[in-house]
Amino acid sequence: MQTVGIVGVGLIGASFGLALRKSGFSGEIIGVSSEPALAAGLACGAISSSATLPAAAERADLLYLAQTVDRILQTIPELAPALRPGALVTDAGSTKKQIVACALAHLPAGSFLGGHPLAGKEKRGPEAADAELFRDRPYVLTPVGAASPEASALREALASFGAVVVEISPEEHDAALALTSHLPQLASTALAATLQRSANPHAARIFGNGLLDMTRLALSSADLWRSILVTNRSEVSMAIDSYIEILQQLKRTLGEREMTNTFEEGALLARSIRKLPLTK
Amino acid sequence: MQTVGIVGVGLIGASFGLALRKSGFSGEIIGVSSEPALAAGLACGAISSSATLPAAAERADLLYLAQTVDRILQTIPELAPALRPGALVTDAGSTKKQIVACALAHLPAGSFLGGHPLAGKEKRGPEAADAELFRDRPYVLTPVGAASPEASALREALASFGAVVVEISPEEHDAALALTSHLPQLASTALAATLQRSANPHAARIFGNGLLDMTRLALSSADLWRSILVTNRSEVSMAIDSYIEILQQLKRTLGEREMTNTFEEGALLARSIRKLPLTK
Repeated sequence: MQTVGIVGVGLIGASFGLALRKSGFSGEIIGVSSEPALAAGLACGAISSSATLPAAAERADLLYLAQTVDRILQTIPELAPALRPGALVTDAGSTKKQIVACALAHLPAGSFLGGHPLAGKEKRGPEAADAELFRDRPYVLTPVGAASPEASALREALASFGAVVVEISPEEHDAALALTSHLPQLASTALAATLQRSANPHAARIFGNGLLDMTRLALSSADLWRSILVTNRSEVSMAIDSYIEILQQLKRTLGEREMTNTFEEGALLARSIRKLPLTK
Repeated sequence: MQTVGIVGVGLIGASFGLALRKSGFSGEIIGVSSEPALAAGLACGAISSSATLPAAAERADLLYLAQTVDRILQTIPELAPALRPGALVTDAGSTKKQIVACALAHLPAGSFLGGHPLAGKEKRGPEAADAELFRDRPYVLTPVGAASPEASALREALASFGAVVVEISPEEHDAALALTSHLPQLASTALAATLQRSANPHAARIFGNGLLDMTRLALSSADLWRSILVTNRSEVSMAIDSYIEILQQLKRTLGEREMTNTFEEGALLARSIRKLPLTK
């Protein structure tokens, strides 16, 4: 791996560049992004040059697509004609089935390895980039079919970042994330919208910290979420159905002994995701 | 106000005692609680003596019931025969309609003023007590009918604690809290239970910080919540219905432009409860 292209120099893309540098990578890191993002990426050292997408695709051994899902789906066919033989394309998109299918349709066999770092921050943009962003966080890879020789270089890089690499299929990824990310987002948005729509005059002033926790995700914009949800619609629909079923069960058993079972199931999950170390 | 009785020397009860002392109160503070809670309350200075409930009721000008809702509903009829003439009873229970009705049925007119401090901590018990627990937090009072002269002493004390006192009816309180506290608890428990019940092998290992936010309340025990939910069943049922309706709407519009409206409604509430100062 001698030349890397980062397409989308935001929080994730710029953090990938910084983490590569910290791990000892001394080759060129070409940024493909908006002017302000390129300037910020150059300033913090996340990228060392900039280029158009075709120019970066011609030269990079590894192309890292750190865009939103809808943009990644546009980028893949665009970069295909220019892709350097033997190069690896990977991405950091929040859903994997449609992106992997798009890559299989447009890119040479073995040249794509889907990815999804479960890493983030309250702040977005390259200004918030951090070489340690991936440490101790899950990083999903979804290998399908033949593997490029560059894939092992990517795996080594992620290991050196301290990421907890989890390798599963695109389908397994999307089913899991429907539960652990997409449903929580909708649960938060729906909760906040319920209070907003209630027009209860006290809903925005008599509350404890629990409501702040439960509405933090509701600050997210629909622009980011639309392409995530549209590319995982059936899994998310099933997750909403399961959620509604349990809410209805809680409603039927409000305050009764039977309700305790549901509280215990919930507490079991809530404890397990706090206590357990993240392991393969 | 010369003698205060605190029934239930836990986080809230002991914090009330410490806050009273900090505001300059120099009278006796009698604790009524379990042996370990009394010992911890005496050790930190939240109470200055201990007694049985009838003995405390005979001597206190102000009785502060800082128990769970079900225990408060038991305590009120028990303390009634011993209550000192002219004394005020107040409480810190999480629902108000049934507690206020119970007090109206058992206590002399004007001797009860319902309360609910929206203050808390991750840690419970008198060991976590804090004289500043109520500062800048909403403190609901639900006056009904005649007012005891001691009621103004309580209001002055709460003001001196830095609490943001909000005076509304018990019905308004319970309708608001169904939305801002009881529904969020059930939304969190149901979310965690959905993941637990899915038996998805990756649900407990591939997740971001959003899931941690959304499942923090799910750590709560059903024991605490049963009496809250049972005493606010109709308001909570309506809140669940509204929530399910919005979830179904999100499901129908997943990834479509129409979904944006619901995200915007939710973001509006989420922003308003963060930006706005807590005012009357």
